[in-house]
Amino acid sequence: MEQVEETLAGKTNRCYRLRQRPTGRVTSADLELVEETVPELADGQALVRNLYLSLDPSNRIWMSEMRSYLPPVPLGEVMRAIGIGQIVASRREDFPVGALVMGFSGFQEYAVLDDATDLTPYTRLPEPTPAPLPMFLGALGHTGITAYLGMHDIGRPEPGETVFVSAAAGAVGSVAGQIAKARGARVVGLAGSPDKCAHVVEALGFDECVNYKDPAWRELLAAAVPDGVDVNFENVGGPIMDEVLLHLNIGARVVLSGMISQYEASSGTSTWAGQQSIGQLIMQRASMTGFLVLDHAERFPEAIEYLAGLLSEGRMRSDETIVEGIENVVGAINQLFEGTSTGKLLLHVGDPELAVPTG
Amino acid sequence: MEQVEETLAGKTNRCYRLRQRPTGRVTSADLELVEETVPELADGQALVRNLYLSLDPSNRIWMSEMRSYLPPVPLGEVMRAIGIGQIVASRREDFPVGALVMGFSGFQEYAVLDDATDLTPYTRLPEPTPAPLPMFLGALGHTGITAYLGMHDIGRPEPGETVFVSAAAGAVGSVAGQIAKARGARVVGLAGSPDKCAHVVEALGFDECVNYKDPAWRELLAAAVPDGVDVNFENVGGPIMDEVLLHLNIGARVVLSGMISQYEASSGTSTWAGQQSIGQLIMQRASMTGFLVLDHAERFPEAIEYLAGLLSEGRMRSDETIVEGIENVVGAINQLFEGTSTGKLLLHVGDPELAVPTG
Repeated sequence: MEQVEETLAGKTNRCYRLRQRPTGRVTSADLELVEETVPELADGQALVRNLYLSLDPSNRIWMSEMRSYLPPVPLGEVMRAIGIGQIVASRREDFPVGALVMGFSGFQEYAVLDDATDLTPYTRLPEPTPAPLPMFLGALGHTGITAYLGMHDIGRPEPGETVFVSAAAGAVGSVAGQIAKARGARVVGLAGSPDKCAHVVEALGFDECVNYKDPAWRELLAAAVPDGVDVNFENVGGPIMDEVLLHLNIGARVVLSGMISQYEASSGTSTWAGQQSIGQLIMQRASMTGFLVLDHAERFPEAIEYLAGLLSEGRMRSDETIVEGIENVVGAINQLFEGTSTGKLLLHVGDPELAVPTG
Repeated sequence: MEQVEETLAGKTNRCYRLRQRPTGRVTSADLELVEETVPELADGQALVRNLYLSLDPSNRIWMSEMRSYLPPVPLGEVMRAIGIGQIVASRREDFPVGALVMGFSGFQEYAVLDDATDLTPYTRLPEPTPAPLPMFLGALGHTGITAYLGMHDIGRPEPGETVFVSAAAGAVGSVAGQIAKARGARVVGLAGSPDKCAHVVEALGFDECVNYKDPAWRELLAAAVPDGVDVNFENVGGPIMDEVLLHLNIGARVVLSGMISQYEASSGTSTWAGQQSIGQLIMQRASMTGFLVLDHAERFPEAIEYLAGLLSEGRMRSDETIVEGIENVVGAINQLFEGTSTGKLLLHVGDPELAVPTG
């Protein structure tokens, strides 16, 4: 093991350092791609070769100074991101060389696993992995588990109730809607193109999908929820959420999973006008509840078992959009805000090169 | 009983009819005071002489076309309001002449009690009344019960937690804060003048009160909640709520009781900019829950028993501001939005003239 480490220390690591806080879309002046050398490992550390990196709206939050559940990434630091990788050098027994791991790996090729500095401890993937690796950052990963927790704990749709899911073609929304269908609800989605809407209905099994880029989207939305909305699984915020709130039924539950429309506004340059319809929560005796998947690590096995069950029964489909190459981080992040991806957006930056340990 | 009715039919009733939907403050062109004659009673009806009428932010909502829990008052109709009155003529046995009643009496001197048209059935007050009549529209009435339900069912403060109450000198806020104190919480209020803040601390027993008309109110608010906010009992909305949301602790509960800052905006002429900080519900894994006292009639006895207990133990104080005369409805409504009243705002329009029935 020491031998492996010595050949890796000094190897080049391409990584993105946050140089300034973006205004609107992210640019290469905000996130600079630099080449550095992999450091020597200390006792208790391991070296992770990143394989897939997760692109999440949260990345954009962490670049800003918005008050969030994690501190902003300090200027000059490697940009924070969740990833899957393989241990390629190790000075700790619980993470042997070859092990597949998940953690806050950052936008880089190599990450040093270190309990003293990692935001949350790395976890090992099951070996052998029961599904393709990208799925562990998607339908069976943090976005799928977000959908599970939000729909089961907060939304709790009953058979026949109407569930509205914004960003229905996205990583969380696509899973949330499929869970609601599995629970017997009528599920209406919202997405940003006719093609995405067709995908949401035909491939994901939603009952209807509204294209919010259609000038008549408000009327289309109203027509799609003739019995009102009992559960709003909200990923977008802004005027879309405001419009959905106007259709809430008495006792409705708003699952506040994300507000991607707001995240680019945190630099103060946007036209964000705030939420106009929050008062509807009073009128309809409704609740709006925020939550974070990171709080519920003890529920992950339950969630993964449920989601894997739906997948194996053919009642759920996992979509990923995979961008190739570490050099494409900036463009890939912006895809989230341009709505040009479907399902979970990932960056593929490497392949397992070492044998995965058995047992 | 027939005799009484015949002398009253044809008597003059001064009432306010909604002529147009107000823009900003209410004017006498919106609510016109007219003199009409009291009609003959049909079987199943009774005639109520109004004694006290309740002025509520909801009055302003019902004048607008905002989507609410009750339909807008149709143009031309008598303006909707909650009131306490005495039965002065009756053609039904359960509401004998002399009985004290509460219901949707409208802004007028005489109301016809009629189950077929009343929004909710009238209820009789206990006889003899165990507290002064105004208190049954305040601390022991719908506003006090609103505070009780919101604090007990949604806010649920634990001893030592920090509770923030906006409109702390108002009808609901004053009771909500005193309940939170009784539960052992640290209670911080917000009101619109140094005098009101002094009243909130000295008379109502809040720990601190922030004057939001002080230019440094944001800093004062931050200084008043050094341990963050666990429960926000919200009556105001707008920039005040947004600022409080930035101080929420993880797992905080927002009791969405009212958003008075929004109700004048429903005519489209205000500078309402929407809520900017709703995303904090995600960051802090917090919930925001709306509710309506009218949904919980079965809980009123429990609430009144609790509130009357606090009053009799000297642990709560009931404040009322009483405006004299039916002719002052318009100015009184606007007081709610100008913040010139303290506690429950009532209109005194008559006194009991008949003996209250016994047994």
